[in-house]
Amino acid sequence: MVRTTSRTISTKGQGDAVDVTAAVQEVIGDSRLREGLATIAVIGSTAGVTTIEFEPGAIADLNAVFEALAPRHGEYEHHLRWGDDNGSSHVRAALLGPSISLPFANGRLLVGTWQQVMLLELDTRARERELVVQLIGE
Amino acid sequence: MVRTTSRTISTKGQGDAVDVTAAVQEVIGDSRLREGLATIAVIGSTAGVTTIEFEPGAIADLNAVFEALAPRHGEYEHHLRWGDDNGSSHVRAALLGPSISLPFANGRLLVGTWQQVMLLELDTRARERELVVQLIGE
Amino acid sequence: MVRTTSRTISTKGQGDAVDVTAAVQEVIGDSRLREGLATIAVIGSTAGVTTIEFEPGAIADLNAVFEALAPRHGEYEHHLRWGDDNGSSHVRAALLGPSISLPFANGRLLVGTWQQVMLLELDTRARERELVVQLIGE
Repeated sequence: MVRTTSRTISTKGQGDAVDVTAAVQEVIGDSRLREGLATIAVIGSTAGVTTIEFEPGAIADLNAVFEALAPRHGEYEHHLRWGDDNGSSHVRAALLGPSISLPFANGRLLVGTWQQVMLLELDTRARERELVVQLIGE
Repeated sequence: MVRTTSRTISTKGQGDAVDVTAAVQEVIGDSRLREGLATIAVIGSTAGVTTIEFEPGAIADLNAVFEALAPRHGEYEHHLRWGDDNGSSHVRAALLGPSISLPFANGRLLVGTWQQVMLLELDTRARERELVVQLIGE
Repeated sequence: MVRTTSRTISTKGQGDAVDVTAAVQEVIGDSRLREGLATIAVIGSTAGVTTIEFEPGAIADLNAVFEALAPRHGEYEHHLRWGDDNGSSHVRAALLGPSISLPFANGRLLVGTWQQVMLLELDTRARERELVVQLIGE
């Protein structure tokens, strides 16, 4: 059985992180599925999904490494071609990936106590994001 | 229901990017599946799959960051052990990952207008790549 | 049909790599499934899963790039807040991702000859890791 849900999440621009673990767990709880795979995917090429210990320090550390790797005010060919200012967003998002798939069992997402599913905004401006949570299971 | 397909894609060496979005959509269209999960995976340890706004600028920017992170002509233990020249390829591929799983619904892959699925060649020479597209759904 | 299995793996601290390909293949073989998706996920926010040519040189090269990107003895906000010493672990794990999903067909995981599934310990101390292997297929 497949269940596909979608919700909108408002973000505040590059580096803004949203803990979506409870939302994923809610989708699992609302379904009749006990065991299967949950895929969490953000639509678009300037945001990403991963897991992290969701506390401000770790998130700031991740953003600092992204800033060193693909600086927001660096020079990007994407800017020259399109007049955009979000070359850093595209690079970071391609590296992080737009989705993650995690198993659930006994109606619970299989993550650790200190491990949350995070939507990370990478675009240079606030966005309305569509987050898809899809369950496949039984 | 599961449907597993495979196709061969010729690449031109490190940094060569191939937009495989239409191929994935074709597999979905050819199946009778309306809703489920599409996994796009490249066989091998020196290529990767992600999503990106598929335009030459953004792809060049991503390759430039990979070059800074794991320079093609850097020193790698993999070279010393095997006489290979593709240590940069292995590092980049392990970071990017060989596969991505994305939901589809109503017979359409759930990606944004400016978001494409990309096979990124990371090896230092042209390769014939086997790309697997697998659907699980109903 | 869904099959979810779990096993414990002992690791030796940051950079320790474990080839789990045979374990994944064993789970596939023990099931009656011939074709589907295998998800390999590590519980926790300081370890990751990817594929690599599993030889000491390539693994050392990957760890060296992680050390340049997020140095073990660097300064992290996570340390200030929690008194931990594993800020580098959290950053590396968020980038690498805790799981990978790969197709299998004819009862075989679809990876290359020189491509192995690797659990990479990123924490600064030895850990007992729970690795989940989940199959969805028929």
